Amino acid sequence: MKKLINKPEDVVTEELQGIAAAHPDLVKVHFNPNFIVRADAPVKGKVGVMSGGGSGHEPMHGGFVGPGMLDAACPGAVFSSPTPDQMLEATKAVNGGAGVLHIVKNYTGDIMNFEMAADLARGEGIEVEAVVTNDDVAVQDSLYTAGRRGVGITVIAEKISGAAAEQKRSLKEVADVCRKVNGWGRSMGMALTSCTVPHAGKPTFDLPEDEMEIGIGIHGEPGRKRMKIKTAAEITEMLANPVLDDLPFKAGDEVLAFVNGMGGTPLIELYVVYNELVKICNGRGVKIARNLIGSYITSLEMAGCSITLLKLDDDLTKLWDAPVKTAGLRWGM
Amino acid sequence: MKKLINKPEDVVTEELQGIAAAHPDLVKVHFNPNFIVRADAPVKGKVGVMSGGGSGHEPMHGGFVGPGMLDAACPGAVFSSPTPDQMLEATKAVNGGAGVLHIVKNYTGDIMNFEMAADLARGEGIEVEAVVTNDDVAVQDSLYTAGRRGVGITVIAEKISGAAAEQKRSLKEVADVCRKVNGWGRSMGMALTSCTVPHAGKPTFDLPEDEMEIGIGIHGEPGRKRMKIKTAAEITEMLANPVLDDLPFKAGDEVLAFVNGMGGTPLIELYVVYNELVKICNGRGVKIARNLIGSYITSLEMAGCSITLLKLDDDLTKLWDAPVKTAGLRWGM
Repeated sequence: MKKLINKPEDVVTEELQGIAAAHPDLVKVHFNPNFIVRADAPVKGKVGVMSGGGSGHEPMHGGFVGPGMLDAACPGAVFSSPTPDQMLEATKAVNGGAGVLHIVKNYTGDIMNFEMAADLARGEGIEVEAVVTNDDVAVQDSLYTAGRRGVGITVIAEKISGAAAEQKRSLKEVADVCRKVNGWGRSMGMALTSCTVPHAGKPTFDLPEDEMEIGIGIHGEPGRKRMKIKTAAEITEMLANPVLDDLPFKAGDEVLAFVNGMGGTPLIELYVVYNELVKICNGRGVKIARNLIGSYITSLEMAGCSITLLKLDDDLTKLWDAPVKTAGLRWGM
Repeated sequence: MKKLINKPEDVVTEELQGIAAAHPDLVKVHFNPNFIVRADAPVKGKVGVMSGGGSGHEPMHGGFVGPGMLDAACPGAVFSSPTPDQMLEATKAVNGGAGVLHIVKNYTGDIMNFEMAADLARGEGIEVEAVVTNDDVAVQDSLYTAGRRGVGITVIAEKISGAAAEQKRSLKEVADVCRKVNGWGRSMGMALTSCTVPHAGKPTFDLPEDEMEIGIGIHGEPGRKRMKIKTAAEITEMLANPVLDDLPFKAGDEVLAFVNGMGGTPLIELYVVYNELVKICNGRGVKIARNLIGSYITSLEMAGCSITLLKLDDDLTKLWDAPVKTAGLRWGM
């Protein structure tokens, strides 16, 4: 196992210490239970937007805490759900009196723990709504998931919901816009290599030197199929077409195109993929009006990429363009 | 070779097409010869700041073109210097009448070609100054380099010089601040894995499964030594101490700390390294006043990291904090 770590059991704590030391202007990090909140939390009268999930997907979610995006993030152990007590404490810490939105990726453990935390928070008088993301078109059910997995759209849902909350929209309105993003977005990913969970010490799966896996999950869950490595053009088609066919996007639609690296894939390759995606969208009359290219929802050091498309309307476009100031995503301030 | 590419010989062209499609608000991409300029170039009365070098280090340099940073970047083939004609055309394209600064990493081919381009540009009446970065303390001479290699400080020099140019400082003043950054900055890197140049199709060097290389160059040039993999704490010491001893930084200094990923290393590990770096700097009384953590000067998909420290004064701190709007680095606008 080749990693820049100390003991596997200390990775998440030390990462959080690093984040705390690096970004005191943006966030406060709480330990035991672990959660990250905006430096100025709670923001009075604003809906608190929070998410969480297993670590190993950085910068998601902790790197997205800050003005215009998340108020809190709860990191679990690598690829493991955070616990209800983390979520409850984070919910309390970001409740500014207007309620708290939980953005939950569709994994069985996350769903269960976020539901428990929401019940506990409601018991303490905090209004909570939860939106589950499930944008992965690759497979219907998978390891750890009933139904579709929540993947790339989560990043975009966090940005857009955060912007809506910043406008002081109500909890219902923020939750509605988050649901709309999930409903209008679709994703699919692929892997060239496996990743290695620090505790496990060996690759999650074996992928021969000349093969790739299409439809992989962000924890290395099985995808649609394995095959010999193809060109970037062929791979982009294998990802983009199921996404475009699923919603379905239609000619004349404007979309946000998100080409995401899985953690071990360099930016030069993501731009090659984006170049192919532009051709495919153009061919269908779908206009890419906004884009995001980089490694934002990762699977440790896995090499590979995912493509997410979100159908845009004026409101979503304006919310996407709104200022954001986080360690992982920043513009306009 | 596992990469998201089409033909190896088309990687750079297709990457540039991807950049052109993704960021028309920020840049214009010219082909044959290849160079990237700010969308609003030339900016009248402002020093043009430009750089260039082999591709494969993304987002450097093309991802740093935009207001507050570079006016132009010239990408060569992967790990190969761009040619004088690229540099000449880019210099002409960004000359707003106040002259052009060339920021050149210390590699023999880059130096030679930038010198030729500067002579040609001067022949056309454009004032040109060149600053060579050579911040790598790992080795004195290396493959492709006489003297020290130019590495991580280049990113910071581009940001700070770009900010100085934005203030309408003169060519001499912008070059002076760039030289100061190089003089006050030191770096060292390490690799857990090799990278594979697309044309070559096989790893640049072999590194056994339980070994790492300390002092590696950004093209996989040999470093100081190979050894069994150590902990993040030990690795960070092996990088930070030679950097801190070289300048030398002293107790009471404020520094910018840049923890850079080599392309295949995920962010979670960079924060673990940053956490160790904070302890080392604190132990010496050196205060980290600013930081940058992420993959900004990469070596294709190499796993590993580098550490750069820059001694700060008020002027450098303000120039670092100034607004920047590029695909790779953005804040304040």
